[in-house]
Amino acid sequence: MITFYYSLAPNPMKVVLCLEEMGLPYEARPVDTRKGEQHAPAFVALNPNAKVPVIVDEEAGARVFDSNAILLYLAEKTGRFLPEAGPAARGDLLSWLMFVATGIGPYSGQAVHFRHFAPEPKDYAVTRYLYEARRHYGILDARLRDRPFMLGDAYTIVDMAVWGWARMVPFVLGSGPSDESVWGDLPHLKRLLDTIGARPAAQAALALRERHAFKAEMDEEARRHMFRHIATPAA
Amino acid sequence: MITFYYSLAPNPMKVVLCLEEMGLPYEARPVDTRKGEQHAPAFVALNPNAKVPVIVDEEAGARVFDSNAILLYLAEKTGRFLPEAGPAARGDLLSWLMFVATGIGPYSGQAVHFRHFAPEPKDYAVTRYLYEARRHYGILDARLRDRPFMLGDAYTIVDMAVWGWARMVPFVLGSGPSDESVWGDLPHLKRLLDTIGARPAAQAALALRERHAFKAEMDEEARRHMFRHIATPAA
Repeated sequence: MITFYYSLAPNPMKVVLCLEEMGLPYEARPVDTRKGEQHAPAFVALNPNAKVPVIVDEEAGARVFDSNAILLYLAEKTGRFLPEAGPAARGDLLSWLMFVATGIGPYSGQAVHFRHFAPEPKDYAVTRYLYEARRHYGILDARLRDRPFMLGDAYTIVDMAVWGWARMVPFVLGSGPSDESVWGDLPHLKRLLDTIGARPAAQAALALRERHAFKAEMDEEARRHMFRHIATPAA
Repeated sequence: MITFYYSLAPNPMKVVLCLEEMGLPYEARPVDTRKGEQHAPAFVALNPNAKVPVIVDEEAGARVFDSNAILLYLAEKTGRFLPEAGPAARGDLLSWLMFVATGIGPYSGQAVHFRHFAPEPKDYAVTRYLYEARRHYGILDARLRDRPFMLGDAYTIVDMAVWGWARMVPFVLGSGPSDESVWGDLPHLKRLLDTIGARPAAQAALALRERHAFKAEMDEEARRHMFRHIATPAA
């Protein structure tokens, strides 16, 4: 059994998609980040970075944190959703997984923070992160122009990593979660999102939203727990 | 032979440390990012993200971009600087490598950008990124309190990834490259930095600075190439 610590944010969602695709049995444990549950000592002992997702693979005696680390761990554990063997394909896998991990994730997160949550004045930061987020999604779209999946003909963990964030593009680049106009410039990425979204594993992943009522309000308490630099400014 | 595209920034430097530790023959090709050489079509064909480092492993027919992807690729290629076998150690390796890749790197980069290069007003962004960068380095320091290296007794690619950024802590958190006061709160991280710095491979990596004269000025041309959101604002 795998214990899976999660919220409904993009990074945990790519892991639940992966667990569902692999048919691995798991117990999902909610961590309500807007209530500060990620800072509880028992959780920080699992992930010193105080973030979801985390998995504990009980039989293997392994604990893994960071969504992209978990995807790679699970692919290696099962031997599934990896590209063909060999150094060229391994290089592509690692390069594109890291592109999502170090580019798509961080820049999307900063774009969301400044566009939707940070106080004024913020023109420079909004311009910077919207430009970088667009540039990164544009690179994914170009990559998908002449191949069905990120690494070619096979659906891999890199596509799962992309799916986690691609679902959020209307919120990252547009006016809100239902702003479909953002897809005009990203038709190939939208095709991948729709292809994965039609899979039973994605439906099962999204059904996780119904299982637990997370705090919905982004109020003062939530901001204090999620943006701790507000509560604890640097000296 | 491995062709290694580099600048003297923290991410390429961790790869040259790794190449030197492994004794792999490589040809170092400078890419002067302050002159915009990362945007040349021939380079973008190697890395669509237009960033260094990139390696091309000629015999293997592999191309790898992103410094952390390259470290993992080279460790798997040589079987060296990895922890013991088994899922627990593999989980630790992937988790901590991703902590550096998705946390230390991005937050250090944003802290440097806003503290040293962005225009006013920027109080909120400086506070946010200084807080997050300090928090991330504090997690590394705590991890190193009771073990010599990031994964235990053995020196691995995670330590090389940490070294790349740890060299920059005085610039990330302090007033400039020679502000040693930042180490007061991070004694264990400083110990790791000094341990690695004393190794011949680190000396050889730092000697790469003498081989090519990169543009030193962070002038208008450099800003235009490195911070393209200034030249090409989002609509």
